[in-house]
Amino acid sequence: MATSESSKPRATGAAPRYELLTLGDELLLGLTANGHLTFIGAQLGRRGVLLQRNVTITDEADAIAAQFQESWARADVVITTGGLGPTCDDRTREVLAMALGQQLILDPVIEQAITDRFAKINRKMTPNNLKQAYRFERGEVLPNANGTAPGLWVEQDGKVLIMLPGPPNELQPMFTEQVVPRLAKLRLLSESEAYVQIRTAGVGESMLETRFQEIFSRYPALSIAYCAHQGQVDCRVSSPDKTYGMEKLRSIAQECATLLGDDFVCFGHDSLAKVVADQLKGSGRTLAVAESCTGGLLANSFTDICGASKFFQGGIVSYSNDSKMLLLDCPECLLSQHGAVSAECAVAMACGVAEQLAADFGVAITGFAGPTSGGCGENPVGTIYIGMHAPGGDWSRKLTYPGPRGTVKVRSVTAAIDWLRRELLREVRKVPASLAN
Amino acid sequence: MATSESSKPRATGAAPRYELLTLGDELLLGLTANGHLTFIGAQLGRRGVLLQRNVTITDEADAIAAQFQESWARADVVITTGGLGPTCDDRTREVLAMALGQQLILDPVIEQAITDRFAKINRKMTPNNLKQAYRFERGEVLPNANGTAPGLWVEQDGKVLIMLPGPPNELQPMFTEQVVPRLAKLRLLSESEAYVQIRTAGVGESMLETRFQEIFSRYPALSIAYCAHQGQVDCRVSSPDKTYGMEKLRSIAQECATLLGDDFVCFGHDSLAKVVADQLKGSGRTLAVAESCTGGLLANSFTDICGASKFFQGGIVSYSNDSKMLLLDCPECLLSQHGAVSAECAVAMACGVAEQLAADFGVAITGFAGPTSGGCGENPVGTIYIGMHAPGGDWSRKLTYPGPRGTVKVRSVTAAIDWLRRELLREVRKVPASLAN
Repeated sequence: MATSESSKPRATGAAPRYELLTLGDELLLGLTANGHLTFIGAQLGRRGVLLQRNVTITDEADAIAAQFQESWARADVVITTGGLGPTCDDRTREVLAMALGQQLILDPVIEQAITDRFAKINRKMTPNNLKQAYRFERGEVLPNANGTAPGLWVEQDGKVLIMLPGPPNELQPMFTEQVVPRLAKLRLLSESEAYVQIRTAGVGESMLETRFQEIFSRYPALSIAYCAHQGQVDCRVSSPDKTYGMEKLRSIAQECATLLGDDFVCFGHDSLAKVVADQLKGSGRTLAVAESCTGGLLANSFTDICGASKFFQGGIVSYSNDSKMLLLDCPECLLSQHGAVSAECAVAMACGVAEQLAADFGVAITGFAGPTSGGCGENPVGTIYIGMHAPGGDWSRKLTYPGPRGTVKVRSVTAAIDWLRRELLREVRKVPASLAN
Repeated sequence: MATSESSKPRATGAAPRYELLTLGDELLLGLTANGHLTFIGAQLGRRGVLLQRNVTITDEADAIAAQFQESWARADVVITTGGLGPTCDDRTREVLAMALGQQLILDPVIEQAITDRFAKINRKMTPNNLKQAYRFERGEVLPNANGTAPGLWVEQDGKVLIMLPGPPNELQPMFTEQVVPRLAKLRLLSESEAYVQIRTAGVGESMLETRFQEIFSRYPALSIAYCAHQGQVDCRVSSPDKTYGMEKLRSIAQECATLLGDDFVCFGHDSLAKVVADQLKGSGRTLAVAESCTGGLLANSFTDICGASKFFQGGIVSYSNDSKMLLLDCPECLLSQHGAVSAECAVAMACGVAEQLAADFGVAITGFAGPTSGGCGENPVGTIYIGMHAPGGDWSRKLTYPGPRGTVKVRSVTAAIDWLRRELLREVRKVPASLAN
């Protein structure tokens, strides 16, 4: 069925409307998280586009056809993910071609690429793989360097349809390397990032708003958005009507950073762990970590960074009192007097792991993550102690996080990394920890 | 606006149509993953319902109203998440009341609950919090034990609208404890789980299908679904037309389990780590882990289990050669002769950590997670060695995983836990590892 009735041209100057259709029963059954929404939403957001809608539907042909008709009628850009594979539940290509009144034609270039790919990985190509060699008669192909199904690009009715393969390691490079530049060329998104993001830690959202008030009141055309997540708050400043250029936005963000002092983490999208990794690598310092209740999550945050071996000496997950004594040299009398969840134990763990692994900095976490075991009196479930061993001195800090086990673990790790970041900043300034805390 | 035109009654016997509306710019900007889809989709799936559609839209009142009208006209059950908070972008309650032609009325019971909650956490209640004390004039309240915004339940036009608060720690218990029983009472989902899930490890999806062929061919009315994720494959068997009762389904699943032998993990939804934890606790054995490239993720898998201290002695993240020598007693000559990514090093790490922590079992992972550092010749990036120290003997296994760093880490951890599971099964049967491998 052709869709001539749906070709409502976009009003000049209006923001283009983007819709994302994610296909697959496995998403609706909760078997797979919808990472495509997270990825594509973030990529578009950086370029000044707020995705207007994401619809997840089943693999059924009727459901795909009905939803596509509806989205195509309303949107300027429709992106689909999934359903381009070789098996019989992969129907997206056929259903959308029919909806747009187009024929699918065999593309010999894609066919050759698929044949070559199978030869390279030494696997036999089955006839159904040829399905993936078809493209829209009036459409283009987005080559896939990481899989067999290419993406498809169709411009029709003054709109754009982009069909992307489901596997994230195929979709993501295709999106950033091919889709974003093509959309920018059509002026459907900004050529470069459209806002400056200020990452902060240790300040709540409303407090941050209050602190920035004085600066932002001087720039009335500024658009400001806050986003809080797991103990951190990001603030994005942009200028939708282009009153301020990127240069000006950067200078405003710099004012904010200066005002915040150590509560400022970075501009952009780096994680706290990445920022700390760069600090450590920059100063040639090394790190070791010891953890009980977070059970490996702190070490994992650092080892998620490619090249972590340059600064990360290692970690010890000391879940029992025995292991704290055996691996971290925590004195038995300290454990019996103060308990494993104590300021004293946190510092002993930090010093122990730094010494064992000959690291400059040692960070330790001990606490009760809950929900059922541990916790009592002055240290209920959710009580966490962070211990720090640093060239500038040793110290500890007590924190309390209500919430389920997973949340307590993540918040504790975030706090520990943030306190290490602050310690590294102090070290650069040569401020003794005792004065700065 | 009333919606009398939308009250299309459901045909008797037809499966009820569920739609989920997730609200929030933070989802569309990719700042937060849509965990509500994963959670609610899985919960409904277990009770025999395939969610038909999930729509994520912006916080704008017009977008919410338009989408709700459309979903309400098509669905039997509409679930919304988010937008029930106290601030001005929380508009769901008002917009949906208007769409259904209902008034919102102040509920004194909710008001009291909110007041009590603020008193308990010692915070001042601001006037906008009272917004949360309103309910639909013809609707019910789902009390919220973990936050201020209660859920709302409305039956109208032969359909059900369920409005849930956004924070997962509020939504999830409300859904399982209140929403599921209410829906079951209305016969909109099964009272108990509607299928039996067989979890397997170490067998690919198509191989599993082939192995089950003989059993399933004897039960033609069976519905079978496979789901592969990170090196594991789940198989769900159900009987949509009730030809087979749950008892029969369980006996068919038991046949499958027997056929699979050690490739069978469990029935239901337990994680591999949970299954291994239960094996260890059941036999009174203890575990310690050592890891380089997975950097804490293996330890974290076990410490995610509440009560892990009963069997988990601890872990060592030995990222450098130094740390392998210092903490795990890996001999320097072994490291220089075979390298840190080798079968010999994996076994030395496993033995070292078990000895250091006085554990019965030691599991080690060493390898190149990539993408840029490490890897060469016979051990390219993605090469992983798993080392095992067990009462039945010590051994190692070489694996190769192509893919990005995160995938290599997760797959390696899954494989290591699975090999430990098999080792524990062998131990029960007293089969020497050398014969069984």
